[in-house]
Amino acid sequence: MPEPSKSAELYVGVDLGGTKILAGVFTSQLKLLQTAKLSTKSDRGFAAVLDRIDRCVRDAVDEADMSLKQVRAVGIGAPGAVNPENGEVIFAPNLEWRDAPLKKELEKRLDIPVFVENDCNACTLGVHEVELKGKPRNLLGIFLGTGIGGGIILDGELYRGFNGTAGEIGHMVIQVGGPKCGCGNNGCFEALASRTAIFRDIQQRVKDGQKTILTEWLGGDLSELRSGDLRKAIRKGDKLVEKVIEEAAEFTGIAVANLINIFNPEVIVLGGGVIDALEDEMMAIVVETAMDSAMQGTTKGIEIIASELGDNAGITGGAVLARQRVK
Amino acid sequence: MPEPSKSAELYVGVDLGGTKILAGVFTSQLKLLQTAKLSTKSDRGFAAVLDRIDRCVRDAVDEADMSLKQVRAVGIGAPGAVNPENGEVIFAPNLEWRDAPLKKELEKRLDIPVFVENDCNACTLGVHEVELKGKPRNLLGIFLGTGIGGGIILDGELYRGFNGTAGEIGHMVIQVGGPKCGCGNNGCFEALASRTAIFRDIQQRVKDGQKTILTEWLGGDLSELRSGDLRKAIRKGDKLVEKVIEEAAEFTGIAVANLINIFNPEVIVLGGGVIDALEDEMMAIVVETAMDSAMQGTTKGIEIIASELGDNAGITGGAVLARQRVK
Repeated sequence: MPEPSKSAELYVGVDLGGTKILAGVFTSQLKLLQTAKLSTKSDRGFAAVLDRIDRCVRDAVDEADMSLKQVRAVGIGAPGAVNPENGEVIFAPNLEWRDAPLKKELEKRLDIPVFVENDCNACTLGVHEVELKGKPRNLLGIFLGTGIGGGIILDGELYRGFNGTAGEIGHMVIQVGGPKCGCGNNGCFEALASRTAIFRDIQQRVKDGQKTILTEWLGGDLSELRSGDLRKAIRKGDKLVEKVIEEAAEFTGIAVANLINIFNPEVIVLGGGVIDALEDEMMAIVVETAMDSAMQGTTKGIEIIASELGDNAGITGGAVLARQRVK
Repeated sequence: MPEPSKSAELYVGVDLGGTKILAGVFTSQLKLLQTAKLSTKSDRGFAAVLDRIDRCVRDAVDEADMSLKQVRAVGIGAPGAVNPENGEVIFAPNLEWRDAPLKKELEKRLDIPVFVENDCNACTLGVHEVELKGKPRNLLGIFLGTGIGGGIILDGELYRGFNGTAGEIGHMVIQVGGPKCGCGNNGCFEALASRTAIFRDIQQRVKDGQKTILTEWLGGDLSELRSGDLRKAIRKGDKLVEKVIEEAAEFTGIAVANLINIFNPEVIVLGGGVIDALEDEMMAIVVETAMDSAMQGTTKGIEIIASELGDNAGITGGAVLARQRVK
């Protein structure tokens, strides 16, 4: 595989999360060359996080043996409501940011054009443009992690809605009177199938006296629990974990059916940490439940798939965004 | 008000329902001149219904003192899945139609171009184009009647999705494990807030021994119940009916909040027989519940309104469709 030349144009995608910053250097054909990772340390404040994003971008470019001068633009997916015009993060609860001028401040540090998008929108862009070669006209991205978010591609373009907040599918109520959600409502999709919901459900069952191999591995409070542990437990035949994951997959299937009934998209792609870790355990149940629950006639020719980009969906989408916007 | 001349161009909109056919004659500025109504008599079969649509269109034109020769096109909203390209009704359970060539057969009878659309899509087109003057770029129509359906306007145009089935919002599950829906699922929006759901709920409460003025008016089985009776009962202080309608309005508010979170439309317009009859009793609860439940930041500047077109939304949308397609 020939290396891109020292004069090639590059794009950098950044996935800004509540706990870590991931930066990826991409060629103009959106081939990933290198990544770099730093913890976010959001408790140190906005300026410190800006410095860390700056450093992470420079680290990634350096790791790729490239120069920052080759980078035409940086695209960032940020965890919250974003104004894509001025690049401000309107509200990011995990970072405790409000009206944070991310684009402006980062451009000062890097002296490169910076573009900002909601993180799930960025992931959806990445999957659509790179993994699916831009083919589906209408696509829905659903990302299951600590929370649940989504992105919507309509007629080949990211759909943002009236206030730029479209795609908040994690807060679709699917069980009135169900478990409390962080947003204040009850029975949101996120309160039923996110990692947070899955962990809460397992911990509750352990408190209720049910048995799981997880407590042997991690101690009774399960405070160090990770998605990968769930996969390992299920493969060891752990019935408690299997049951909880099955239920989360069924709720996800119902949410997918709702979205098929509403949007009738061509492709629905699932991703995020929960799906990355538990694809084999969850996807068949998600697809079967969705296909059973969606209205007759709505599912013909529709695909429900898991993204193969994994952790790289966000940086890929950041690079797609950077390339789209700088052109 | 000057009458349109005998040479003016006209459009006819038809609202084809399970029980009645409504036809309306419109000027090229979409002013309604006259309507005509016939029962559908779908039990007599497809050809008989075609004859009745034909007659209803001719009746409406005649009532307006106009000639069929002035009609440039007919637009029909049909209760089911429709192929808007070839004008076939793919599946209409209330009419027991499958793959019915409505456009082709009606054009033979009328010798005028005929265009066919799903009924809720037609209503949404009518509200968007005539009531709201085409202003909102993104709009969601929600129609509560015997069932619940919706229509989606994105970027000023009707959005149909991959299989043309987008907008089936009545089958969004909002209460997993809730009441059985006609579609086979449980807890669909339609199973919680349609006229069918409301009547079922009232009848169940009566069976359970609760008191309502409705049984004094209509007898114990309430077989002749209509939406208008509910309004009258509430105005007489009937607590049972008030409670049932309040719950239906709350479920509707949750459904609206879900759709705001997902789509972030500029305007959400509610219509259909239930809203037409119970607007004063329901809308304040719908709006309050939706605004409370939707995510922070998504509702800024958004409007949730009841359509003023009432029963004429369908024929208005039919005329809009006819005018759009024939141009």
